[in-house]
Amino acid sequence: MRLALEEAGAAYRDVALLPPAAGGGVPALLKVLTARGIRQPPFALPVLRVGRRLIAQTPNILLFLGERLGLAPGEEAGRLWTHQLQLTLLDLYLEVFHTHHPLGDGYAYEEQKAAARLRTRDFLRVRLPKFLGYFERVLALNSRRGPWLVGARVSYADLSMAQVLAGLRYAFPRASGRALRSRPRLRRLEAAVFARPRIASYLASGRRVPFNNEDLFRRYPELDR
Amino acid sequence: MRLALEEAGAAYRDVALLPPAAGGGVPALLKVLTARGIRQPPFALPVLRVGRRLIAQTPNILLFLGERLGLAPGEEAGRLWTHQLQLTLLDLYLEVFHTHHPLGDGYAYEEQKAAARLRTRDFLRVRLPKFLGYFERVLALNSRRGPWLVGARVSYADLSMAQVLAGLRYAFPRASGRALRSRPRLRRLEAAVFARPRIASYLASGRRVPFNNEDLFRRYPELDR
Repeated sequence: MRLALEEAGAAYRDVALLPPAAGGGVPALLKVLTARGIRQPPFALPVLRVGRRLIAQTPNILLFLGERLGLAPGEEAGRLWTHQLQLTLLDLYLEVFHTHHPLGDGYAYEEQKAAARLRTRDFLRVRLPKFLGYFERVLALNSRRGPWLVGARVSYADLSMAQVLAGLRYAFPRASGRALRSRPRLRRLEAAVFARPRIASYLASGRRVPFNNEDLFRRYPELDR
Repeated sequence: MRLALEEAGAAYRDVALLPPAAGGGVPALLKVLTARGIRQPPFALPVLRVGRRLIAQTPNILLFLGERLGLAPGEEAGRLWTHQLQLTLLDLYLEVFHTHHPLGDGYAYEEQKAAARLRTRDFLRVRLPKFLGYFERVLALNSRRGPWLVGARVSYADLSMAQVLAGLRYAFPRASGRALRSRPRLRRLEAAVFARPRIASYLASGRRVPFNNEDLFRRYPELDR
């Protein structure tokens, strides 16, 4: 979501990063979820506020931003294909979350370490290669048009793909390095996204939230085998 | 997906249900996933074939069918809101899957019974009431317009909601009965969907795949507490 806004040079306020005194931070975010008088309430964060509208669910937000910001094809078939890839990336995101929280976030990591080890083993051996192999194949099928997943221009699916790869490198430096060795097109996409001028200056600005162990991608060295 | 096609009276072939001799069943489905020459290949089932196009990812298929079959509002805000609800239902579906397979489907249920018990406990005590409470609230906010989640007409989100409730009743007859006691609007929506003439005749036809323990919703009485 943030990469999409940055890539398009959109003006936005990142409420999570504002200090509480300036109406930001966790209290402001929770207020959105419990506010009265909203006819179409979100179930969970993240939420994009556009005027008086609240839009939730990351793939849905990206569907909206893709049209508004020109980060997806305009015609229906291309728009749905981009969204399909995004939903497949969501599946991958969720499987990453389950590596460290297979029992859900109702339990601390320390309470589910044994389950996390088993789940991660299957993820790194079976699921991750399957996902990366799939996306490498999609890139190969589109390679005459460019280094992107869809057509000749960067789309929000490329931004998400690069973000997933960066997250995997943070969480599983050993295993993801190994898995990416035989996926040159994915490595090229990742480099191409982070070299986009606006993305590069966003990263250099210090405004990007660094990967950390409170978030979806977490580094537990005991899982990275 | 099937309920959407049935509600709209669309002509379709349910390949999973055709005998292999008639080009159906599991072999035909696997063939779709491994076929060569497809420029936009699906990662996983289910897949909708429309002419030469393959569309995958259930929420994406429903986004497509919603527009084609008139099962979602035509304007952008209503279309995205319906999709947002569908993605929230997907979250609920996935959490149901994780009650019996917290370690993923790389392991048999019997290998992960202890983890399943812990995950299900949290699901039934915390997550399920949170989801059902949310959807009950959405129904209340829309109640002046009708018994549906969105506007005055049935949408694919209503069909998915009813399907989830039926699945929950199959998987957790005790716990879901308890959870639905205080959610009259959800019970009304469920009854209204299954009373739709085309849905009712679909159910009566015997073509609907019954809930079963090979599928997403599974009944393990030891989990239903």
